[in-house]
Amino acid sequence: MGQRTWTLLNEEDHLRCEDDFEITARDVEDPGADYRIMSRVGRGGLSEGVQIVAIDNGALRFDVLPTRGMGLWKAWYHGDSVEEHIGWTSPVRGPVHPGFVPLAESTGLGWLDGFDELLVRCGLESNGAPDFDDQGRLLFPLHGRIANRPAHRVDVLIDTGEREIAVLGVVEETRFHFAKLRMESVIRTRIGSTTIDVRDEVINLSAQPVQIQMLYHVNFGRPLLDAGARVVTPADRVVPRDAHAAAAIDTWDGYAAAEAGFKEQVYFLKLHANTDGQTQVLLKNRTGSRGAGLRFNTRQLPCFSLWKNTAADEDGYVTGLEPGTNFPNPRSFERQQGRVVSLPGGGSTSFELSLEYHPTPEAVERAAQEVGALAAGPPRVF
Amino acid sequence: MGQRTWTLLNEEDHLRCEDDFEITARDVEDPGADYRIMSRVGRGGLSEGVQIVAIDNGALRFDVLPTRGMGLWKAWYHGDSVEEHIGWTSPVRGPVHPGFVPLAESTGLGWLDGFDELLVRCGLESNGAPDFDDQGRLLFPLHGRIANRPAHRVDVLIDTGEREIAVLGVVEETRFHFAKLRMESVIRTRIGSTTIDVRDEVINLSAQPVQIQMLYHVNFGRPLLDAGARVVTPADRVVPRDAHAAAAIDTWDGYAAAEAGFKEQVYFLKLHANTDGQTQVLLKNRTGSRGAGLRFNTRQLPCFSLWKNTAADEDGYVTGLEPGTNFPNPRSFERQQGRVVSLPGGGSTSFELSLEYHPTPEAVERAAQEVGALAAGPPRVF
Amino acid sequence: MGQRTWTLLNEEDHLRCEDDFEITARDVEDPGADYRIMSRVGRGGLSEGVQIVAIDNGALRFDVLPTRGMGLWKAWYHGDSVEEHIGWTSPVRGPVHPGFVPLAESTGLGWLDGFDELLVRCGLESNGAPDFDDQGRLLFPLHGRIANRPAHRVDVLIDTGEREIAVLGVVEETRFHFAKLRMESVIRTRIGSTTIDVRDEVINLSAQPVQIQMLYHVNFGRPLLDAGARVVTPADRVVPRDAHAAAAIDTWDGYAAAEAGFKEQVYFLKLHANTDGQTQVLLKNRTGSRGAGLRFNTRQLPCFSLWKNTAADEDGYVTGLEPGTNFPNPRSFERQQGRVVSLPGGGSTSFELSLEYHPTPEAVERAAQEVGALAAGPPRVF
Repeated sequence: MGQRTWTLLNEEDHLRCEDDFEITARDVEDPGADYRIMSRVGRGGLSEGVQIVAIDNGALRFDVLPTRGMGLWKAWYHGDSVEEHIGWTSPVRGPVHPGFVPLAESTGLGWLDGFDELLVRCGLESNGAPDFDDQGRLLFPLHGRIANRPAHRVDVLIDTGEREIAVLGVVEETRFHFAKLRMESVIRTRIGSTTIDVRDEVINLSAQPVQIQMLYHVNFGRPLLDAGARVVTPADRVVPRDAHAAAAIDTWDGYAAAEAGFKEQVYFLKLHANTDGQTQVLLKNRTGSRGAGLRFNTRQLPCFSLWKNTAADEDGYVTGLEPGTNFPNPRSFERQQGRVVSLPGGGSTSFELSLEYHPTPEAVERAAQEVGALAAGPPRVF
Repeated sequence: MGQRTWTLLNEEDHLRCEDDFEITARDVEDPGADYRIMSRVGRGGLSEGVQIVAIDNGALRFDVLPTRGMGLWKAWYHGDSVEEHIGWTSPVRGPVHPGFVPLAESTGLGWLDGFDELLVRCGLESNGAPDFDDQGRLLFPLHGRIANRPAHRVDVLIDTGEREIAVLGVVEETRFHFAKLRMESVIRTRIGSTTIDVRDEVINLSAQPVQIQMLYHVNFGRPLLDAGARVVTPADRVVPRDAHAAAAIDTWDGYAAAEAGFKEQVYFLKLHANTDGQTQVLLKNRTGSRGAGLRFNTRQLPCFSLWKNTAADEDGYVTGLEPGTNFPNPRSFERQQGRVVSLPGGGSTSFELSLEYHPTPEAVERAAQEVGALAAGPPRVF
Repeated sequence: MGQRTWTLLNEEDHLRCEDDFEITARDVEDPGADYRIMSRVGRGGLSEGVQIVAIDNGALRFDVLPTRGMGLWKAWYHGDSVEEHIGWTSPVRGPVHPGFVPLAESTGLGWLDGFDELLVRCGLESNGAPDFDDQGRLLFPLHGRIANRPAHRVDVLIDTGEREIAVLGVVEETRFHFAKLRMESVIRTRIGSTTIDVRDEVINLSAQPVQIQMLYHVNFGRPLLDAGARVVTPADRVVPRDAHAAAAIDTWDGYAAAEAGFKEQVYFLKLHANTDGQTQVLLKNRTGSRGAGLRFNTRQLPCFSLWKNTAADEDGYVTGLEPGTNFPNPRSFERQQGRVVSLPGGGSTSFELSLEYHPTPEAVERAAQEVGALAAGPPRVF
């Protein structure tokens, strides 16, 4: 019983683990258990050079992408004789190396070339829609830079006592004369559990103050998302992003069948939380037999955005549940609204997010009740 | 006698063949023959990481670039005791990895940093001159993205019965919320022949319609191109691109000696074709001892552009023979003229192009006569 | 006794030396000596794929970056039981692969993402502040492209007779239809010396004339730079770049302690030189116990810029001593002032720069006297 760590990547020592790196329960003398950690590097196409760290805790298997800012690429639940995909199928063939993601493109939309993750962080200096100056020149690209910055350090840890596996990654988003930010991520799961806990500490490396933004773009498609699926939230307020979303406000928390040419609808929510600020949301399929929940703290992530994109499967049938420090509008607008996080020189802040898969109707129902207990009355719709 | 295939690259399996991969006639128990396929990966400079698949059919040797959208890099004819270069010598030191080609540059000219191929495809969403919006922001960069997208799958095939070697590659040009296109290329040659057959199927992966463009930028320099070389075409109409080209209309189908500072001249042609739409063009050197021809179908590729760039050797003494779905003007202009190809959701279209090297005066003369048989009278010049 | 060379990188042969490449004095049968050359390739983070060639001449150890245009990354002096860092500590975690440096970004400031070298060349077509057209579109990005172009050829040479080690690298900055430039760099040091000699030949590969710029951005931080450090120059004229620099003109040649939020000050100098054009400058620490000098020729590099950036250590406490063909203003301004170098077709020009570390008060004082001997009276301040 004890704790062991392995370094999978360390830029300072010019070290990256072998391409067939694997640790199993046997390696930590835990013979009754069945978990493993693997690392490999993509070859071919847009994935060339992308490191993929796969964690299988015995019930949940998920891929972490150090080369893409420690995002969660894909996940699967595997019980007795089942394997269920959690996440979505993007038309983008990923994981995409940042070298093929043109963030500098003047449209500000280059980020979309790499978008295929279950969980992608949007930040750190900015997120949201592209922001332009008066001359139409790009100030901040869509969803910021962090998802296309590679970790320079990755460790994995197995704690046989606590029955825990963790991946630790460090990513920097810096520019000389501008923001200098470091994110230290810990992605943790208990052996045999269906929960992934993400904790990110964002550190201002500069002696100067900085304003940051963070949004967790957590995306689900089939089989969880289907016609009749619903998002269950302790919504206090629901604001459609635009007239197109407003027109569909009556069904804001439900999902339709895939429809070619469906135009995305976005809703901005304020959520109820408990006295500690903790809150949660749930996505459940039509029959309520499967679900996925997010838990987070509204003091860290006060804004919740719901992205509905029930387009054709070929174009991405997907919904995004997006807790953030802000809504995904252009940064300058959000800043005017005070929806940025100020960090003094050397300061830091943390964000925690838990993603839980609910593989049974009972688990879904229990999560729905927990959400219900947070909500006080119906949401106010604006 | 039979067919065998080898997978050289497969992103799904994180597989790329060894750097010293080689198959010879001996490996397929074809001992009387002398052909081979090799794969290697560039090291150093701008070529770092570029895969090069070399095919030698016993008479023709040519390099395919999976990392650059399945372009044809260079080719050589080798008969008894001769080796003749087909193609040109670009001032760009390639093959250039897409990571060093700044397509997002606001000038729209970043593509030029990677331009050194014998055959480079321009497309798929767009090709032609850069296209800008009213504010001067880049909409579509010069010649599109496909030549700087890496294949995610490459196979080679030897058919000892059909006496054929083929390279099959799959490349995608996709952006979430925008065009989602796949190109499945087959590059085929018969053992001992001097012809390369290219067949590209472009598939709209989206459920939504899309409009595409394709242009084959086939480039020749020395020794084929020399002072007195001529392009022989079944031209119905010849339109100079601009006043500079118009001023030289009398010599539009001939080539001068290299001249420092020569400014490129471009002519847009409509070609005669047979009743099936098949047509061909020929480039022959001054003495008519050597030539290179293109065969294609005007129903697939109705527009033919001739690019004359007889600049100094150091700057690229080169001509481009360019069958396309359109002329290489900005996409929005070509679209107004209806020169885009509409594909419904899930639809596809194919393009075929044969490149033939003519190593003797007899072969050149025969090709010239074939062109002549297509043309009905002299071209109308506008 | 003799000369031996090793090729570390050769794009033509698809050759890069092994990752643990090392040559020592023993390998050249020079057993009494203690020098070595090593090559490795960065792994992880932004350094993935960056080749680092380390030279240790027995007294000075320094890293050359072929992947970043043959820049000098870091250097250390090591005498008996001491090791002193020469250079600075950038907030950028480098060396950064060019693939992570967005030169095409419309701000023109992407270069700052990779800025952490002791010596970085700014050129070749342009250097200085970003240059825009009337519509605000980027013409030339900050400090040009050469520092983010990879060498395609690298050799090392040991001459046991001359007691010399040299690294030779060739880098190209070319674009079809635009400038086609090659830089052949020789970085040389004598065994046991504290001097590094840089010689760059810039060749116009085109048949057309071209105008180039070159600036050596040589950067020092702690321990050499401290509160009370001074730059000693044979200044004839000192011109502050702007009102902010003008306000601090009285202390233009001295350095203050690190100060969070310090805004950079830049001074443009014309230097006295000897009759051959040779000149030198010196940076010395407060006590005069350590110093670093640059020697160059004002006929090659007539402009000298001093960059003072005594910001907080976290943000880069650093000064840049910058001999150049021009001052680092936007290229179009400098061109109007005639501060570009014209090269005819096929022409070339050379730049030489020596960087010397002074590890003792005596060496510092000697260098200061040499500078003093060049200067005729106090500088004229404008």
